[in-house]
Order: sequence, then structure tokens, then C-alpha cells
Amino acid sequence: MTPDEFRRYGHQLIDWIADYRAGVEARPVMARTHPGEIKAALPTAPPDTPEPFEAILGDLDSVVMPGLTHWSHPRFFGYFPCNGELSSVLGDLASTGLGVLGLAWQSSPALTEIEEVATGWLRQMLGLGDAWQGVIQDTASTSSLIALLCARERRTNYALARGGLQAEPRPLVVYASTQSHSSIEKAALLAGFGRENVRLIPHDDRFAMRPAALAEAIRDDEAAGRVPCAVVATTGTTSTTAVDPIDAIGPIAERHGLWLHVDAAMAGSAMILPECRWMWAGIERADSVVVNPHKWLGAAFDCTVYYVRAPEALVRVMSTNPSYLQTAADREVKNYRDWGIPLGRRFRALKLWFLIREQGVQGLQARLRRDLANARWFAGQVGATPDWTVLNQVLLQTVCIRHEPAGLTGDALDAHTRRWVEALNRSGRTCLTPAEVDGRWLARVSIGSLATERADVEAVWTLIREAAEQRT
Amino acid sequence: MTPDEFRRYGHQLIDWIADYRAGVEARPVMARTHPGEIKAALPTAPPDTPEPFEAILGDLDSVVMPGLTHWSHPRFFGYFPCNGELSSVLGDLASTGLGVLGLAWQSSPALTEIEEVATGWLRQMLGLGDAWQGVIQDTASTSSLIALLCARERRTNYALARGGLQAEPRPLVVYASTQSHSSIEKAALLAGFGRENVRLIPHDDRFAMRPAALAEAIRDDEAAGRVPCAVVATTGTTSTTAVDPIDAIGPIAERHGLWLHVDAAMAGSAMILPECRWMWAGIERADSVVVNPHKWLGAAFDCTVYYVRAPEALVRVMSTNPSYLQTAADREVKNYRDWGIPLGRRFRALKLWFLIREQGVQGLQARLRRDLANARWFAGQVGATPDWTVLNQVLLQTVCIRHEPAGLTGDALDAHTRRWVEALNRSGRTCLTPAEVDGRWLARVSIGSLATERADVEAVWTLIREAAEQRT
Repeated sequence: MTPDEFRRYGHQLIDWIADYRAGVEARPVMARTHPGEIKAALPTAPPDTPEPFEAILGDLDSVVMPGLTHWSHPRFFGYFPCNGELSSVLGDLASTGLGVLGLAWQSSPALTEIEEVATGWLRQMLGLGDAWQGVIQDTASTSSLIALLCARERRTNYALARGGLQAEPRPLVVYASTQSHSSIEKAALLAGFGRENVRLIPHDDRFAMRPAALAEAIRDDEAAGRVPCAVVATTGTTSTTAVDPIDAIGPIAERHGLWLHVDAAMAGSAMILPECRWMWAGIERADSVVVNPHKWLGAAFDCTVYYVRAPEALVRVMSTNPSYLQTAADREVKNYRDWGIPLGRRFRALKLWFLIREQGVQGLQARLRRDLANARWFAGQVGATPDWTVLNQVLLQTVCIRHEPAGLTGDALDAHTRRWVEALNRSGRTCLTPAEVDGRWLARVSIGSLATERADVEAVWTLIREAAEQRT
Repeated sequence: MTPDEFRRYGHQLIDWIADYRAGVEARPVMARTHPGEIKAALPTAPPDTPEPFEAILGDLDSVVMPGLTHWSHPRFFGYFPCNGELSSVLGDLASTGLGVLGLAWQSSPALTEIEEVATGWLRQMLGLGDAWQGVIQDTASTSSLIALLCARERRTNYALARGGLQAEPRPLVVYASTQSHSSIEKAALLAGFGRENVRLIPHDDRFAMRPAALAEAIRDDEAAGRVPCAVVATTGTTSTTAVDPIDAIGPIAERHGLWLHVDAAMAGSAMILPECRWMWAGIERADSVVVNPHKWLGAAFDCTVYYVRAPEALVRVMSTNPSYLQTAADREVKNYRDWGIPLGRRFRALKLWFLIREQGVQGLQARLRRDLANARWFAGQVGATPDWTVLNQVLLQTVCIRHEPAGLTGDALDAHTRRWVEALNRSGRTCLTPAEVDGRWLARVSIGSLATERADVEAVWTLIREAAEQRT
């Protein structure tokens, strides 16, 4: 494609995206596609000769669009907010259009240094001290894997340089709460710990990890000759946005030599609000923290920031230095290839840098406060309505609810919950994600799409009541 | 940013990218930035209030541009071609603008099914049989880590579900050639194998792995009570684009129960040319293959395709199934979250789909053949010039050369090589990457940027001669 063709089709695509965002409200929130339907609509073999670009853009409407669940819809309340602010979309476009690559600082110095600046700005916004240094990763899943790899290596005095994990005679153990994200157990298994060495610690009545139970589990493992290695605390769990008490967990981790990793993937964004920072009190004792600006904050996916207090461990675990990557500047610069798994890196910092600058810290704070107020309002409505219950402490933007009409309990209540959520999702008028907590299903209403205003929250509450109450 | 503002600034940015690509030739190829220079030019704290978007776009010229090494420059011959065809840039923009996320098939069915289609098309283009299934990953580094994790788990009968790697009494061993990419050893160390259990097998006079030496190393490990686990063969090594003999390595791997992973990150793209497919003869015996469409082929970074013949092992190692991710469609669809490390996934397939359709298979083949012919021409020129040597077998688009004037040997020759390459890079007129092979430095001339024509190769040859010959 020539630059002039790019100009023409690029303008068309920009307009198409603007139209999409402006008009997404008119679309069904959840895709109604049947499995295999999109594949069946497409050629089984690649085209031998070029296709007209108009036809390709046309397929965005005819093939792609009907197969989407619209995360930017104002009545999307599923999973978590995955906000790609339009300014951030342009930051990402600049990155892709430039097509430069980070392999070494030298392979495009701006890519590295703007990442240092943007992650440094975000650090200040989150209220983290200046001992923390950040690096952009793709996701929290990858970041938590990196944290557990570093924990494993620090605990074994960097066995990777010798006989590896198998050379360590005593089993290493990882701790997290029963409410921690599935990516934590996955990371532990990938890092080689084994499921038998992952302890899921019970939670209190607010779904937060019980520090006393953690301490007890650690003592039991030590007594049995195992080596406690890492603990993952969550600020804002996936199911209920519960907050593990880092200020109690930190000293336990320190006393027993554990790596403390804090998964603040979702709720980390809220730390730009000083009134929320109590939620991760004690954070300065952690070894690593992961925050996803690509969730609520508004950076276009994928943009996760992984902060560490002592990058030496990270660099020692991740570094490689083959001849074809060495440059004269290496001693004076950061080579972010040594801060994560991939060697090649996009210029991801642009989308974070654009977002912060175009919104300003106050602009971002105002939007998050809007969402918190909407969540409190919604929880108030639910709590004041007969037969309805709010099941979590609404500290953040997720409200966990259940319709509990008289006489319905146990499996029958579960069936009712799943039925009305499913019916609502199928209606195309909103999207909620159900979750199972302590063996019972509930509906999560996750508020915080860019476009979601109070009127949308009011509308979804009406829709929810209709869907649930007419089904009893 | 409102959709209307996005329209306005988006058009500006599209034009800016078009101008950049059309005019990149006039810029110095390599950045001349000093360490810290860009950081020093930027505010140390984030802006409290919004900045005008004009100022942000303006900084692309004033702050970002001077800090870039221009990978799309027609005289960029460094590292490897990292081509972001402009059609693919638009595919990526569509993805970012839509802002939908793959967590489950249901969370946007088109994201999953177009990935199945696009990776299926590429599979056919590469001449791989229909037993292979593909998934898009970020990079080859990550893909090779995934391969070694799967190898580790298959060999231990999925110890991750029990006591993990530590529960296995006999050390597992990984094999690769001395010329394999640094990411292979890194992957082995991250997967827990330990450096003592990584065997780097010697190469023959064409820098390819010696199968007899591999077989011998495996036998030695077995005799010592260790368990051979995986072998990584490379199609097109980084330093010299050497080709490991998969047809000889495959039967050895099979006989001893090793996982065979093929790293075709760079040269995989050449397999769309039937005349190149002899290079990975025997590929159908491999367990996994990684190919980077974001290199020579032209997909915007990041777009790596990881192919496996038996996805069961991959899914068994990577799968998680928490309540909040379960959907009614799960039994009938692919959930790509179980095919890699991250849970959240971009709609990366669009950039590959757009590329293949806009270029057509023949268009892509024609460009790669142009580059191969340029490499052969260049090697011919170098080989025919007194005091100049071509050091590799030029099967692909990389030509490894050295200026060896009479009387210069050993360290003095190395110093000469590094000096003239460095001088050339500093001149801003081209960019080459030096590499150390068997203890001696050489200059790699990696041909294949989208914009690189014969005239550019002629020009770089003149520049190289000037730089080297005037320094002796």
C-alpha cells in the first residue's frame, strides 16, 4: 500500500472508528454469533492476488461487526472496563505507523526513554514512592508470571544459572487467597511450582485474605520442611473487588523471606484517587506490583505496568546479552528487553503518554470518581429493594448482587441467577458477567466504561429488575 | 477525546504517518541521541490538566522523531526486517479502535474466528499440513518459552498438576545449537531447566547444528541418568541465517522422546516460496514451530504465529477455567486464552488478515523474491572484490561479510570490523548490525525492508567499501 493509498483509506478508517464509537449505543451489547458462523463466511484459502482495499474495509461491517461484543458500549457491565480512550488509540496508531522496535535502547532511544517517563508519571499518580521503577508488559497474567519467576530465583539464589529448579531439594511454596485471579495459579504452575505447592488462603467476610491463616500456612510449610517463596496479595479481586490487607501481609512476608507481589490489575487505577489509597496501605513493603492502565484508566489494550522496587532481581532473571544486541550505550541506559520475556517491544509508551497528557490527571480522576459514585448509587438502589442483596463491600466500581425471592435457596437460587443473567445478555440490551463465589452464583455489575453515565446505570437497574423479577 | 476530535486529529496523524513513510529516506537511519537526552527534555511530573492535542502531536516531531532509529528506511540493514506494511497498520488501527478483548470466544467471537482463519491461511502459504493449528503470540521469545514449558510438562506427565518440576528426580535437558537465538537459552532458564541442563550443540562449516553431535549429547545425558526433554532447531539463525537440518534432527528427537521445536522466526516467512521449503524439510515431524509475520513478511509488530500439531498439550498446560470466564459456548469453540500466557488478547488477527488480502500471496512472494535476488547480487559483489569475504552461505536475505585486508588478523581484524561498522552507523547513512561468530566479529547486512530496492543495496555496498577501505 502506498503512502497515498494509506492516506485515503486511513481517513476512511478513522471516520469509521469515530462513527463506531459515536453510534455503538444502538448495537446489541453482546454478540449473537453462533460458533463457527464467522469462519464459515470466509474463504478457506488465502487470496492469490490482491483484493481491493474497499472490500477489506467493507468486511469490517459485514463480517467483523456482527461478531463483536461491544466493550465500549455505555451499557457494557461485563468483566471489567477495558477502556481505549480515543487519544490513546491515536498514541497506539503513532506507534504502529512508526514501526520502530525496542531491542536495545539504541534501536530507538525514544521508545525506551518515553517508557521511563510515562511509567514514572503513572507511579507518581498512584502515590508510589520513587524507589519504584516501571516497565510496560502486555498483561497482568504475564506480569504475575514474571513476579513468581523472580521470587523463585531470589529464593534459590538464582538457581537458573546452575542446576535450575530441580537442583533445589526442598519444595518452594506460593500463597494467594482463594479469591485471587486464575492467572496467579496459572503463573505458579508455569513457573514450575506444582499445584501441590500452591496454597489458597481462606478469606474473611469481605472476601479479603485472612493474614492469620496465611501466617499459619507458612508455619505449617516450614515445619514440614518446605520453603515459603512468594505471596500474592490482590487489591480489588475479580469476583468482588475485595482488598487483601497488604499492611498485615507485608510484615509476614518479610519475616519469612517471601516475595510479596501485589495484583492491582483492576483496582490499581483507583490509586490515582488519594481517597482510595488506604486500600493498598503497606504497598511500600511489596517487591512488585502490577497495574493495568488498559482497564479502567483508559489506555488502549495492551498496556500493563509492572513496578519493581529492586530491578536487579528482574534483570538478573531476564537478561541476555548476545553479540548482535550489544551497543556502545549499554552501560548508561535501560535495555527493557532485560525487564520481561519478549525481546522485541512495541512503542507502547506512546498510548499511555498520550492518554495522560490529553486527559490530565484531574480529567482521569474526575471520570473515575463519576464511576465510583455511580457504583455507590447503584448499590444503594439494590440494597433498598426487597428481595435484592448486595453481596460485596462496594469499595470500587463493581457491585455484586443477587435476587433472592422468598423460598428460593441453594441450587434453585443458582439456577434462577444464571437464568436471568443469561436472558439479559441474550436480549442484547446489556452485558453482565456472573461469577461463582464460595459455591454460589452471583451477578457482577462492573461499572466504568468511558461512555457509561448515571442514566445507563439507571437503565440497567430497570432491565435487571425486569429480567429477574419476571422469572420468579 | 470526542469522536469528532478523533476524526480531526486522526486525519492529521494518518497524514503524518504517510508523510513519514514517504520521506523517511531523508532522515539519518540511526538515532544520534545521547543517553538521557529525551528524558531530560520532558516534564518530570504528569500534567494536572489536559494539554492541547496539537501540542502532543507536535512532540512527535520535536521529541520523538530525533530519538528514533528508522526501521522502515530503505537503507536500514540492521537486525532483521521489521516490516509494518501500511495495510497491516490499518488492520491494527481497526483493532485498537474497536477496543474489543478476547478473554473467551464469547467476549468477541470474530476476534477468535478470524484468528483461526488468518493463521490457517498462513499455514497453507507456508506449506504446512492441515494437522497444524496456529495461534498469535507477541514474539518468538514468548513462543519458545511456551514450547519449552509444554516440553517440560509432556516429559513429566504434567507434573504441574502435582508436585511440579521439583518432584522430578532426574534432571531434564534441553538442546539447541551454539548458533540458536539468545531467547532459547533464556526460555530454558525461565522454564526452570537451569543452565547446566542446556546443551549448545556444535555447528558444521555452514553454521548448522551437527545432528551426530546432538545424538551423542543425548546419549551421554541418558547414560548419566538425565532425561533429554526438548531440542530446538533453527531455520535461519540470527547471526548467519543458517539452517539446522530438521530432517536429520526429527528422527533423533522422536527416537529419544524429545519435543522438537523449530524456531523459524525470521526465515519462516520465506517458506511462502516453494523454492525455499527444502530449508525446513522434515518440519512435519516437529511438535511446534514459530514464525514471525511481523518480520520480513510485513505484519505490523507484534504478530508472531505459533503452530502446534497437537494442541492438547498446549491447552493442558495453559488452561484455566474460573467461573467468571465460563460461557455456554465453551465446548464448541476455541478459547485462545488456553493457548498462551496472557488472558486478555488484542484483535491481532486483523493486521495479518489485512496484509494477506491487500498484498495477495503473489504480491508477498514477489517482494520476498526481490529481496533474495538483492542478497545474491550483493553477495556476488562482495565475493568478487579483493580483500572482502562472504562468510555465510547466502540462502536467505542476510549476507555476513568481512573486510580482511592483508596482514590484519585476530583481534586487530575484529577492531577494524567494529570500527568501520560503527563509523558507518554513526554517519546516519545506513545501519548494520555486527555480530560475533565463533569468537570473531563480522558485519551482517540484512536486506528486506519494504522500501529497499536494488539501488539501495548498490548504495550501501559503496558506503561499506568507503568506510572499511579508508580505515585500513
